[in-house]
Amino acid sequence: MLLSTLVSLRTKEFPADAQLISHKLMLRAGYIKGVSNGIFTMATPAILSARKIENIIREEMNAVGGQEVSFPVVMPKELWEESGRYNSIGDELVRLSDRQGRGLVLGMTHEEAAVQLFRDWVSSYQQLPAMIYQIQTKFRDEARARGGLIRVREFVMKDAYSFHATTSDLKKYYKKVYDAYNRIFTRIGLKNFVAVGSDTGMMGGSVAHEFMLLTPSGEDTIVICNKCGYKANMEVAVSSEEKFDRDTVAPIEKVFTGNLGEIKEICDFMHIDANKTCKAVCYNIKGSNQILVCFIRGDLEVNEAKVKHALKRDIGPVSVSDNSVLVAGNIGPIGLDKKNVVLLFDNSLKGRNGLVAGANEAEYHIKNLDFDRDMPHAKFNDIAKVKEGARCPVCGETLSLSGGIEIGNIFQLGTKYSKAMNCFITDKSGKQINPIMGCYGIGVGRALASVIEESNDEKGMILPMSIAPWQVYLAALRIDDPTVKKAANALYKKLLKAGIEVLFDDTEATAGVKFSSCDLMGIPLRVVISPKTLAKEEIEVQSRDGSLKDNYPIKDAALKLRKIINSKK
Amino acid sequence: MLLSTLVSLRTKEFPADAQLISHKLMLRAGYIKGVSNGIFTMATPAILSARKIENIIREEMNAVGGQEVSFPVVMPKELWEESGRYNSIGDELVRLSDRQGRGLVLGMTHEEAAVQLFRDWVSSYQQLPAMIYQIQTKFRDEARARGGLIRVREFVMKDAYSFHATTSDLKKYYKKVYDAYNRIFTRIGLKNFVAVGSDTGMMGGSVAHEFMLLTPSGEDTIVICNKCGYKANMEVAVSSEEKFDRDTVAPIEKVFTGNLGEIKEICDFMHIDANKTCKAVCYNIKGSNQILVCFIRGDLEVNEAKVKHALKRDIGPVSVSDNSVLVAGNIGPIGLDKKNVVLLFDNSLKGRNGLVAGANEAEYHIKNLDFDRDMPHAKFNDIAKVKEGARCPVCGETLSLSGGIEIGNIFQLGTKYSKAMNCFITDKSGKQINPIMGCYGIGVGRALASVIEESNDEKGMILPMSIAPWQVYLAALRIDDPTVKKAANALYKKLLKAGIEVLFDDTEATAGVKFSSCDLMGIPLRVVISPKTLAKEEIEVQSRDGSLKDNYPIKDAALKLRKIINSKK
Repeated sequence: MLLSTLVSLRTKEFPADAQLISHKLMLRAGYIKGVSNGIFTMATPAILSARKIENIIREEMNAVGGQEVSFPVVMPKELWEESGRYNSIGDELVRLSDRQGRGLVLGMTHEEAAVQLFRDWVSSYQQLPAMIYQIQTKFRDEARARGGLIRVREFVMKDAYSFHATTSDLKKYYKKVYDAYNRIFTRIGLKNFVAVGSDTGMMGGSVAHEFMLLTPSGEDTIVICNKCGYKANMEVAVSSEEKFDRDTVAPIEKVFTGNLGEIKEICDFMHIDANKTCKAVCYNIKGSNQILVCFIRGDLEVNEAKVKHALKRDIGPVSVSDNSVLVAGNIGPIGLDKKNVVLLFDNSLKGRNGLVAGANEAEYHIKNLDFDRDMPHAKFNDIAKVKEGARCPVCGETLSLSGGIEIGNIFQLGTKYSKAMNCFITDKSGKQINPIMGCYGIGVGRALASVIEESNDEKGMILPMSIAPWQVYLAALRIDDPTVKKAANALYKKLLKAGIEVLFDDTEATAGVKFSSCDLMGIPLRVVISPKTLAKEEIEVQSRDGSLKDNYPIKDAALKLRKIINSKK
Repeated sequence: MLLSTLVSLRTKEFPADAQLISHKLMLRAGYIKGVSNGIFTMATPAILSARKIENIIREEMNAVGGQEVSFPVVMPKELWEESGRYNSIGDELVRLSDRQGRGLVLGMTHEEAAVQLFRDWVSSYQQLPAMIYQIQTKFRDEARARGGLIRVREFVMKDAYSFHATTSDLKKYYKKVYDAYNRIFTRIGLKNFVAVGSDTGMMGGSVAHEFMLLTPSGEDTIVICNKCGYKANMEVAVSSEEKFDRDTVAPIEKVFTGNLGEIKEICDFMHIDANKTCKAVCYNIKGSNQILVCFIRGDLEVNEAKVKHALKRDIGPVSVSDNSVLVAGNIGPIGLDKKNVVLLFDNSLKGRNGLVAGANEAEYHIKNLDFDRDMPHAKFNDIAKVKEGARCPVCGETLSLSGGIEIGNIFQLGTKYSKAMNCFITDKSGKQINPIMGCYGIGVGRALASVIEESNDEKGMILPMSIAPWQVYLAALRIDDPTVKKAANALYKKLLKAGIEVLFDDTEATAGVKFSSCDLMGIPLRVVISPKTLAKEEIEVQSRDGSLKDNYPIKDAALKLRKIINSKK
């Protein structure tokens, strides 16, 4: 392609709200253009990269027996009512009407459409396992779209749905997709990524993994054990139970604490550590008038995903001060057995004593709380967030935390959708059963942004050969010199003929501008042709990743470049 | 791919409302599945074909310098307000709101998004011509979606937008795309198609062509001169002015016609031909309280597209009986010079006399109407539909009519969008001008359906090698015989290794069922392996189009099939 006519612009400017490096670079290099909040046009460099990512995904999905299909972006609401998601999903599901007033939704995933296709066309276990996948536009009305292509509202996603007659078959297949995902992310050039256990959230099901790019800029938090390899998303990372010595038993005492309510204030006032306190954290239980009070050791934080699991209900924020049952700032476990109040206790409190907690009375706390003695019927759950430095639940080694960007996810869905949508097959024994499902997603644009987020330097992107929009940036210097112009044009045509993907900078810009453009756009190989190189009948070749810088005879250019490209694929 | 696990179903059944053969066959062969009115899931056979069509389109667009991009499906209403289309387009544009209540639209074409990208990034004539295109999902809320993939609400379309500094450059480029379109339709296997002049409709602009597949089932009507090659869509086909002899001049006479109003009733009653009458056809002029009365010779029909052009306003249906100014059934040209009534006269009336027309009085017509004498100030336009057997406006030969399915369209848009959206470039003389645009569309699913509509027989589809989902249908007969099973599996693997696309029917169905499936799905080559062929160490190869039936040694299978496939590409 000729740079002179490429509808594109490279600039040093970017919107002030672009915080991720991938977002800044994609704007500056003319890869994307914002159309609305979380909605982008993919310009030619981005779409050429995206198509390569799509093809890598396609190859790996086909290799595990995937069958490509295409579900509609716009679906009737009735289909989503069948699964129950029309009502259970909030505002991120866009609901609209057609000209007849019939309700429609914009697809954010396609479990319903997949089950609809499957249930009419497949009837026997003999046809399984089967996996259908699509690479299709989705819309999710994110409340906080940000970070360029990392968290958008409209996006292209590969979503796949597998169907099985037995759970063991699902588990076997799940592992195949898990391996395919590792191959995909490696092939597109990601380096520091891991698969972690994750919450199944609104998708339903039991087992799930997220593939995470480990990067400080990621908004997810990943818990990692460097000794045994335990890895989990913060949402599901298991807290290990700690060994501790009980304090000397002492009777409960009431302490005047005035308007002090925060754990830090109480600790300063009473000269104790936060791990000697019992903290209360309150939520509203959605769809009810009940208040949930979670008790947890004062040095820990509540993990809301774990709370939802323990409760099997959804929760939301609540203002305790509006509630007459609870005394804000002084909530404690003793005597809280009230109507419309549900209690949850974190494992971190189990068997502890000598704790400070709220007295359920304005301006007072208690000390010497002893869970064994004072709360003998309390039921404990793991509802705490794992802290940096906590112990690995598997091997006991110190855990570390990392930021992460989710680059893919896989779910063992089970029969949630097939059951709700009355999808049946005949199993081996002739019985009618709901097929057991898995689902598997990768966002194409986010994959591209993630590669850029990980591979860049102060000059711009550093794209791998496998997904770069062009393999070669041909910079003709002093193209106003007819000799250069002629030689550069001839070389361009020769390279194209050899099947090499070339962005030919045929503009009259300076060498500095041309090199900056090449670096910013992250093109793997820069080929320079100039009066100087022509005097020696050579071209100069330099790789963006710094691994190569050499001159070659111009007559061998196509062959040399082809070899370099193949070695980097 | 193995047929046993393909999520697909072949059946003799189809919904009663499937009238087009392509619709019936795609349903019966498991290519598509209806999800809602005009919304389909493309199953694996359809999407494999569609991807091949997309690649052919992509190659031809790239060959004329096209740059692939991807615009969003969902756009902010403000972008569409800039062009004016947010208000000018009716219910086929889907309007919706996001969670913040901000207005959005679902893209039905992408002129606005293209201009938005271009105006920020391109500033000089030196960067032109430039053409950007995408292959992307669109949604158009058709009032009457029907015909399977021929007229849908959601569809994937290649839409392209070119930008030019001069009209002559646009015209030159338009011709290049015109030629590319001919190559695309030929490559995907369409045979009987033509490019015809067409109406620019809501797209704006002056010159436009539609590529039409000529088929009796098409809902468009194409006017064709088999002598000089004149071709046009009925909407714009020019009526030639006919030679005629004037009648003897006679004074106007009023005739009592009672409740007779239809032209046929009047002709029967007065013993005259319809071409001796002057018919009135009424419309509402949209956005006004004016009534339009079109006068045309009684044997002709009004062409509403031409009326809109002549009037430069949009029109809609009107009920004359609700209107006190006009006398329904008795409307005539004389004395109709009334407030809020606009008159249009068709060329077919120019200079005519001896005509019967309405008297503008209940129960009366007039005879001996003479346009030269009685309506000396009437202005005439071509607002008639061309009839079968009319004269060619170019050479005078008899015209014929054909049904047509629109398979693509190209428009010379001019500056309609660039002007409305304040898009400027610097021209050669340094002046700021609005770039001149062209736009070019092809629906991918409709292209596939059109090929099937044209190429089929009583057994099913007949797909060309270039777009068939698989090149070979490998039918293993008596696969319960271990020898067959082993040989068929080995052959399947060998063909895959040779890069041949094979659908392997590994089911235990009968030969009859297997052959029917292959025929129905339209796979170009059927390869049979059976105890009988194995006894001779052969395979049997038969082409779906009937051009080939032969046996080959099984050991040469891959090479032979590769040769046959290459010869048919």
